Amino acid sequence: MAAAAPPPPPSEPPAPLLQPNTIQPTSTNPPLFARIRLATIFDVPFIHKLIHQMAVFEKLTHLFSATEGSLATTLFPSPPPPPFSSFTVFLLEVSHNPFPQVGSAFSFSPVLKTFNFDVPITDPEAEEFRAPGNDVFVAGFVLFFPNYSTFLAKPGFYVEDLFVRECYRRKGMGRMLLSAVAQQAAKMGYGRVEWVVLDWNVNAINFYEQMGAQVLQEWRVCRLTGDALRAFANVNI
Amino acid sequence: MAAAAPPPPPSEPPAPLLQPNTIQPTSTNPPLFARIRLATIFDVPFIHKLIHQMAVFEKLTHLFSATEGSLATTLFPSPPPPPFSSFTVFLLEVSHNPFPQVGSAFSFSPVLKTFNFDVPITDPEAEEFRAPGNDVFVAGFVLFFPNYSTFLAKPGFYVEDLFVRECYRRKGMGRMLLSAVAQQAAKMGYGRVEWVVLDWNVNAINFYEQMGAQVLQEWRVCRLTGDALRAFANVNI
Repeated sequence: MAAAAPPPPPSEPPAPLLQPNTIQPTSTNPPLFARIRLATIFDVPFIHKLIHQMAVFEKLTHLFSATEGSLATTLFPSPPPPPFSSFTVFLLEVSHNPFPQVGSAFSFSPVLKTFNFDVPITDPEAEEFRAPGNDVFVAGFVLFFPNYSTFLAKPGFYVEDLFVRECYRRKGMGRMLLSAVAQQAAKMGYGRVEWVVLDWNVNAINFYEQMGAQVLQEWRVCRLTGDALRAFANVNI
Repeated sequence: MAAAAPPPPPSEPPAPLLQPNTIQPTSTNPPLFARIRLATIFDVPFIHKLIHQMAVFEKLTHLFSATEGSLATTLFPSPPPPPFSSFTVFLLEVSHNPFPQVGSAFSFSPVLKTFNFDVPITDPEAEEFRAPGNDVFVAGFVLFFPNYSTFLAKPGFYVEDLFVRECYRRKGMGRMLLSAVAQQAAKMGYGRVEWVVLDWNVNAINFYEQMGAQVLQEWRVCRLTGDALRAFANVNI
């Protein structure tokens, strides 16, 4: 299914509870630095593992057939299309060391944010998700691509997947990923950002509505796939 | 809104009722020839008028802000992207004269079909929709673009709009347009064709289910647009 899952937190993490006469908890832990950057073909092993985790989370592993090879071919074709004109992956990385600032020579300048948590995060999968750099770990991703509104005569972005690994959830990182897509859309003058949500996922729906999104109640997604697609394509012209 | 509207007919047109000892009705009318071809920038005036008719049909003209200029810029950028890699419009034309056969030198060979109706169609807007050629008239369009399934690691097509002008409706032409998209998807090895439908549009839902599509009942579309999009983009990184 792979659609905007799992949900971002219903709200920003609560402020740390302060006890009288104690040191403010946020000062006891080192900050966690987060970076969102454009993924490249070298990130495919991470993307593949993240998508598989998403399938497990959604109990949909029976629908999961992606391989590193098929992801590489379809997400990073050669020659590459112009930035943001096709399927695009933003990768979320975290580190206890600050990320270097980079200039605007790239098609997308990485988004940086510093988090201060009162409880340090333990990442049991750290080694599996260790990225190049100084103790950098992949924490999540968002996959999106252009869509189009004929009424607006404008492109927009459709968010197919939004995923944050379990130990980093409910800390504002899903929101950070979605914001990066919205920021890119606004920068390009695009009209909309759209995605889908499961109707029983009340926390996610509340979160989306709080951030200003409309949930369109009347529309249903129709899907033609597999044998039905091939049969309809072959018979009904 | 502009999503797969209006619905195609719930079924193929019924076979003409035959009266004993009368000539078969289909033989009394000349056939109507239909052609689906890739739209070009020269078709923008037709596309604009068709989208406006769709907005009227959906009672959503207050959301309609497309102009011929904005459609031309966004649907037919220069240089053009590779065929089917971005927003794509198939145009449906009809004529009482056969369309010429064309070879496969183009990126899309037009789809041709001959209809025999027992009652001739009167087109009150014929002059407004007269296309280049020998008595050729634009009857409808479908707009679609690639989407992506991470589970399949395959692109698909998303159908944003499907529209047939009123006098040509309920004759199998919407089905012909949708089939052309499915055929192209199958030809390219794509995994899915998807679109949305209004939940109260029972005829359309029945039609889609009969042709093998699943209607996903649990998913809701979320949309961030206008001021809410700009606010979220600017504030929440």
